[in-house]
Amino acid sequence: MSQSFDIAVVGATGTVGETVVQVLEERNFPVGNLYLLASIESAGHSVPFRGKNVRVREVEEFDFSTVRMAFFAAGPAVSRSHAEKAVAAGCTVIDLSGAFTSAQAPNVVPEINATLLHSRGIAPCLVASPSASATAVALALAPLRGLIDIQSVMVTACLAVSALGREGVSELARQTTELLNVRPLEARFFDRQMAFNLLAQVGTPDASGHLPLERRLVEELRELLALPSLKVSATCIQVPVFFGDSFTVALRTAGAVDVAAVNAALESAEGIELVDAGDYPTPVGDAVGQDVVYVGRVRAGTDDSEQLNLWLTSDNVRKGAALNAVQVGELLIKDYV
Amino acid sequence: MSQSFDIAVVGATGTVGETVVQVLEERNFPVGNLYLLASIESAGHSVPFRGKNVRVREVEEFDFSTVRMAFFAAGPAVSRSHAEKAVAAGCTVIDLSGAFTSAQAPNVVPEINATLLHSRGIAPCLVASPSASATAVALALAPLRGLIDIQSVMVTACLAVSALGREGVSELARQTTELLNVRPLEARFFDRQMAFNLLAQVGTPDASGHLPLERRLVEELRELLALPSLKVSATCIQVPVFFGDSFTVALRTAGAVDVAAVNAALESAEGIELVDAGDYPTPVGDAVGQDVVYVGRVRAGTDDSEQLNLWLTSDNVRKGAALNAVQVGELLIKDYV
Repeated sequence: MSQSFDIAVVGATGTVGETVVQVLEERNFPVGNLYLLASIESAGHSVPFRGKNVRVREVEEFDFSTVRMAFFAAGPAVSRSHAEKAVAAGCTVIDLSGAFTSAQAPNVVPEINATLLHSRGIAPCLVASPSASATAVALALAPLRGLIDIQSVMVTACLAVSALGREGVSELARQTTELLNVRPLEARFFDRQMAFNLLAQVGTPDASGHLPLERRLVEELRELLALPSLKVSATCIQVPVFFGDSFTVALRTAGAVDVAAVNAALESAEGIELVDAGDYPTPVGDAVGQDVVYVGRVRAGTDDSEQLNLWLTSDNVRKGAALNAVQVGELLIKDYV
Repeated sequence: MSQSFDIAVVGATGTVGETVVQVLEERNFPVGNLYLLASIESAGHSVPFRGKNVRVREVEEFDFSTVRMAFFAAGPAVSRSHAEKAVAAGCTVIDLSGAFTSAQAPNVVPEINATLLHSRGIAPCLVASPSASATAVALALAPLRGLIDIQSVMVTACLAVSALGREGVSELARQTTELLNVRPLEARFFDRQMAFNLLAQVGTPDASGHLPLERRLVEELRELLALPSLKVSATCIQVPVFFGDSFTVALRTAGAVDVAAVNAALESAEGIELVDAGDYPTPVGDAVGQDVVYVGRVRAGTDDSEQLNLWLTSDNVRKGAALNAVQVGELLIKDYV
């Protein structure tokens, strides 16, 4: 017997929402009726699914009691307005917005902490799919927890403009074209020139100087690794790359790092593709469109054996968001199909 | 009485060499005769200096005994072939190539370790101007040495393509144009797509996985800060930016960091421009064409007071190379003019 589930995707016209629909199709998720939802501005558009164009409806008007599962891929404001109502209406919500605390919605990356959802089934509840940054870094560090005693983690996250949706992508393209045509540049979507430049701040820092994205990365990383007091420092910068986030990760360890053992652990870990020493992965050449996080440049510190360095690159829209959310959905229904 | 000095610039047709000539003029360096030198391929070109075009000669044919000072701004191979001969001929050599060990040629950044050259005068000798990365990071950390007990430094260096000279710049422009015109991309100068991408490896790694550039950054940083056993880990990535290097720097400290005191020390340090919290500097918007290293995003760790994070951006061709070398020259002649 094969059961199917009626599903809603909120934010279906955005970069991530559209990719959720695409991944549901690719992975043969047992979708019964598919409801695509968005704000009133996008209602009336349509998105292809299994050879048909599915019309996008207005989320405000939708009755969530008609579906078993909903993916929330719009912003935190939309999740705050509708996700808990959807749960109350009997729906299992997988939230991609970061709107909720871990107490309200546990963050799940199936390769790391699938056990959190064991025997939970699809009872009405909130589950979160973490930020692209936390997902990538946690996938690389989880296999190392038993091997090295991590004292602190320093992450520089080089974020693609697609993290900001379609407007980020088209603004980078527009700015680049204007500069190459020697036309005066007018920054619109970003607060300054993004083309051929690096922006060291994504969002508004708090009183201590940390960005919301950086705080979210730190908190989600601690949660996913189940290391609640891990020392993590994060800097999120915006780079002129369309798709694919990249990360330099530097760990301080108690005791010398066995680099060969680290390589072996990464080689056999799920959700990771280890690139051999000498070569290295790039966002454009490797990560984009792929389901795994690429790891390369694995090495100890310079004259410092209690240190480990990694380079990661990952498709921020797929494994960083849409794919992971669908994998969480698969985990929730696995006892029913 | 004002004395003048006959000067040679080796590698005068390159990005850095041309900027050395420009900075000598801008700063009214007391140049008598100026000799511009390059490989046989560039001989016959000319470079403007004080309103005249100075013809470029072949370095192989040049008699270094005719000048008092020579700037070597070609690659390490050219420095290895000619710099020591120039010293033997009575010339003071300022080398920008990284060809020599610190025992052969001490690295000098005048704001940090000018005392190394005190009373040395312009006796024939080799002095080195360090890499752009070490110069920028050392300028930011030197003022903090008395204030915080630095246990380890983690640097992610985001390097502009101009570090690779004119070919790096034109290749990024060419690739970008081809991609925006949806033409198939052929990577030539870089080993893969540089436009809208990040390359995690600049040069060939050694058996431990470190790049020559990373080793150089570590060694020069220890030397400039006079902290020979400082733990430094460095990752150098190539970013699609034409001019201006950027750095995330994360320090572990023994004892809590007083962020206000750090800001005060940076505010009053030479060679640095501190950007207020809330704002931040970028390579294109701030660093390019400027003589200082911009420092921003000064903050402690997340829930971790024994940690300090900085963001730096600097003109890799000026303060990172040509300007610093000319400042070293000024230091050497200051007792004579």
